[in-house]
Amino acid sequence: MPGGAIAVASDHAGFDLKEILKRDLQQAGHEVLDLGTNSVQSVDYPDFGHAVADAVASGKANRGVLVCGTGIGMAIAANRNPRVRATVVHDVTSARLSREHNDANVVAFGQRLIGPEVAREALKVFLATQFEGGRHVGRVAKLAKGCMS
Amino acid sequence: MPGGAIAVASDHAGFDLKEILKRDLQQAGHEVLDLGTNSVQSVDYPDFGHAVADAVASGKANRGVLVCGTGIGMAIAANRNPRVRATVVHDVTSARLSREHNDANVVAFGQRLIGPEVAREALKVFLATQFEGGRHVGRVAKLAKGCMS
Repeated sequence: MPGGAIAVASDHAGFDLKEILKRDLQQAGHEVLDLGTNSVQSVDYPDFGHAVADAVASGKANRGVLVCGTGIGMAIAANRNPRVRATVVHDVTSARLSREHNDANVVAFGQRLIGPEVAREALKVFLATQFEGGRHVGRVAKLAKGCMS
Repeated sequence: MPGGAIAVASDHAGFDLKEILKRDLQQAGHEVLDLGTNSVQSVDYPDFGHAVADAVASGKANRGVLVCGTGIGMAIAANRNPRVRATVVHDVTSARLSREHNDANVVAFGQRLIGPEVAREALKVFLATQFEGGRHVGRVAKLAKGCMS
């Protein structure tokens, strides 16, 4: 993975896993940009999904990590930004393929759906895996198409 | 689920599962709008994700079903449309929660990642589950925020 910060965020339902992943990233020597939330008090997940998307799209961060109860709402929010390619990941295989085929730059986990060891390993693989390029380049370019009404 | 057509599409890597799900939907009495692809010849998944998103956003279809190798690229493409809430689904639980909490209107499956019986049951649950409303309404409204640059 190229250098650069990794932006992390969660809502209340993903706070515990976000803290675990953040610690892993820091221990691996990554610069981590923690965009919240900072407790298990109820918040709205789109605010945090948008914040990480903005950080990645602006170049402040190279990759983004999102956690909510399912990862679903977070990934939807982040994908509103056409420079972001975010996906829910349940396993190492999805994490690898999202990088190899889709050049995903944001990964979303569901704290209520997968265990912390699965998420930790999937994140490691996500960060270590290169985009394959080749036949995938044109397809990824089509994902940069902005929103339609 | 309210009435209305269901738009389905896949790329080449999701063609077989798309055909299985389409048949299920037709046998259950749904009106199905098949937006392709129609063979296993290589195509670009974003074209099909965008097509289903347009159909759902315009009201031509009430729900959308997407299949590619992983579901990942399709869901990213569909979520470029702020009226679409699309998610990759690996299981019945994700399918249920995507409806209850996120009011998801498009579901994406990965033919290379999950088996057809899992996808068939998850789709049935996706279509049968109502949005919970309540505290989720404001959050879903925030997902309608358009793209940021």
